[in-house]
Amino acid sequence: MKVSDQKTAEGILFTDQYQLSMAQLYYRMGLHEKLVQFDYFFREYPDYGAHKAGYCINAGLEWLLDWMQDAHFRDEDIEYLRHQTGRLGARVFADDFLAWLRANGSFDAISMRAIPEGRVVHPNVPLTVVQGPLAMAQILETSLLNHLNYQTLIATKAARIRDVGRGQLLLEFGLRRGQGKGANAGARAALIGGADFTSNVGISYVLGYPPKGTHAHSMVQVFIALGASELDAFRAYADVYPDDCLLLVDTINTLASGVPNAIKVFEELRRQGHEPVGIRLDSGDLAYLSIQAAKMLDAAGFPQTSIVLSNDLDELAIWQILTQISEEAPRYGVDPDRLVGRLAYGVGTRLITSHGEPALGGVYKLVAVQNHGAWLPAIKISESPQKTPNPGHKHVWRVYDE
Amino acid sequence: MKVSDQKTAEGILFTDQYQLSMAQLYYRMGLHEKLVQFDYFFREYPDYGAHKAGYCINAGLEWLLDWMQDAHFRDEDIEYLRHQTGRLGARVFADDFLAWLRANGSFDAISMRAIPEGRVVHPNVPLTVVQGPLAMAQILETSLLNHLNYQTLIATKAARIRDVGRGQLLLEFGLRRGQGKGANAGARAALIGGADFTSNVGISYVLGYPPKGTHAHSMVQVFIALGASELDAFRAYADVYPDDCLLLVDTINTLASGVPNAIKVFEELRRQGHEPVGIRLDSGDLAYLSIQAAKMLDAAGFPQTSIVLSNDLDELAIWQILTQISEEAPRYGVDPDRLVGRLAYGVGTRLITSHGEPALGGVYKLVAVQNHGAWLPAIKISESPQKTPNPGHKHVWRVYDE
Repeated sequence: MKVSDQKTAEGILFTDQYQLSMAQLYYRMGLHEKLVQFDYFFREYPDYGAHKAGYCINAGLEWLLDWMQDAHFRDEDIEYLRHQTGRLGARVFADDFLAWLRANGSFDAISMRAIPEGRVVHPNVPLTVVQGPLAMAQILETSLLNHLNYQTLIATKAARIRDVGRGQLLLEFGLRRGQGKGANAGARAALIGGADFTSNVGISYVLGYPPKGTHAHSMVQVFIALGASELDAFRAYADVYPDDCLLLVDTINTLASGVPNAIKVFEELRRQGHEPVGIRLDSGDLAYLSIQAAKMLDAAGFPQTSIVLSNDLDELAIWQILTQISEEAPRYGVDPDRLVGRLAYGVGTRLITSHGEPALGGVYKLVAVQNHGAWLPAIKISESPQKTPNPGHKHVWRVYDE
Repeated sequence: MKVSDQKTAEGILFTDQYQLSMAQLYYRMGLHEKLVQFDYFFREYPDYGAHKAGYCINAGLEWLLDWMQDAHFRDEDIEYLRHQTGRLGARVFADDFLAWLRANGSFDAISMRAIPEGRVVHPNVPLTVVQGPLAMAQILETSLLNHLNYQTLIATKAARIRDVGRGQLLLEFGLRRGQGKGANAGARAALIGGADFTSNVGISYVLGYPPKGTHAHSMVQVFIALGASELDAFRAYADVYPDDCLLLVDTINTLASGVPNAIKVFEELRRQGHEPVGIRLDSGDLAYLSIQAAKMLDAAGFPQTSIVLSNDLDELAIWQILTQISEEAPRYGVDPDRLVGRLAYGVGTRLITSHGEPALGGVYKLVAVQNHGAWLPAIKISESPQKTPNPGHKHVWRVYDE
């Protein structure tokens, strides 16, 4: 997208057309400034297929508020709406409504109450409650859902992965497999939910985290293509980053080439007074390879170096790896708990897309309308009974079992 | 995200940290301006679980190029990198490298050849070929994959849905369930792949499409909460949009209330000289309800009105609905082909997230390095054999069966 188009596509028009059609109808009926309440909630925990979440982690509010504070109908947005035509060529939006929108089309009159980001949340409980004039509260719907649904989804996935990974270092690697710029929102949500760091440089900058990453296979390939070797590539890396040396060992053959070459370089580093950080495994049977790599690193005098695992990891894959390690490691004389204690996880695709359940079905439902100072409950009886919301004001209680 | 942070998080730093670590290493070794070639390709068609694609639709190039033309290392990006520190507190990036990056850190020297957007494409064929100086070609990787993977994924899903829907009108409704701003990229890709229109106002504006949408359940609820009725809500809508009247009929009870009320309003419209557009069904058994609604509309003299279906649709759900219609419609005296011919589909969550396969595993692999004017092939032998790329330059042939 052209930079000049971004303000248009990501501003107040980051909404669905029907919000604007309804807003005009409310204006026409004199209802546009009626005070209403919408509740944001989700109906079911994410169901990943083979497993299902039993909680969600609330996220996305701050970015939603940032968006709301900036979004308003600019002259060019109004001009665009002025030129919209219906099926028979007549204008969709009338001048009086557009004039009202130009003057009142911001979220300044909206008030929100919400459960803070990072909290554990549950279905059918209002997580964010919006009160405000009907037209603008309606226009808000799409962007609110977009911001809150996705970040809550990813924060939840990150918390699950963190949990299964026994609290070992969790790195978010998903930028290349996210939905365009939305990958930044995903990285943020992952950090809220349980990731320690992300490889995403820009979002790390904005949020004040140090971004993480070392090198790719391509670096080793460049050296080989030019007639040098994996060992030369590793040496070059150690030379440039002697105190942050983490080597990707699966470009040629993990156990026959990568790990032995890494150990050679680690020994050279140590002789120069630097402690190596570790290795990364990015293909193959990660449980088996991590056991063998640990054994080799131990034997070479590097029992503390990290072993970073990556390649389509998620909570299920990590659980399988840890299970396999606990069964197989003793057979090779490797202590499984000590091995797990040196693992770190780089999780990309399956975190940023919430593999198994790529959307949270959070909804934003009208629950009350104020009339002559009194709040009237609003309800929708749907053909799908689970879609029927709980009308009126609600108060969320959390009962702790002591 | 604060507006002021967007340029940072979405500019040249929209990349992974290891791209920058490698770029500095290449600089240090004098390799940073070596001419290299990376191929972008995917290894497998999307596999949605119950079904699998047999093609992909190429998409995302134009937005990638827009990004490349704008992205460069600004002073503040350089300052940020200058302050990055490693494990022991030493600076990660040295001044000479940063000076080079400030002066040369754009994509001006990169050349690309690519299969155009919208074309049918297949695995293990280079879709986009990048040649340029090693450091910047490496830094490009993350953003290139981000742009091309997601849009190709969604264009493919849209084409499949379009195909199953027998070419009936397809509307993209996914903004509220996409990944933040990435939903705009998804809407664009859906339009490339087969959607006719989107409900997303901003992206419609930017791309020159009329956005589509009428009203939500909340509009009917507002009327009811204020003591009026669904019929009043429909009348109000018809009054404001007499030539674009498409009514959502499942707020209370589709067949007992929504459709009869819609028919009443349609009759009133017709008496005033306006032809109604149709109804939308958003819950329940969509096949059954569309058969019954069609029967009622036919009997009332509205055999041409559209029936828009929505609610978690994708190619599988649409296929099931059409199968059910072809079996059940005759039982109710409704011609199934004529019914299908008046259907339109509003597809949200499952299109924007590519339900069943939420990421395309497209990769960007180094295939050749130029040395003393000669191209040397580059290869990576992986523990996962399917990850071994095809080295060197390639030419894509398409053989048409005549």
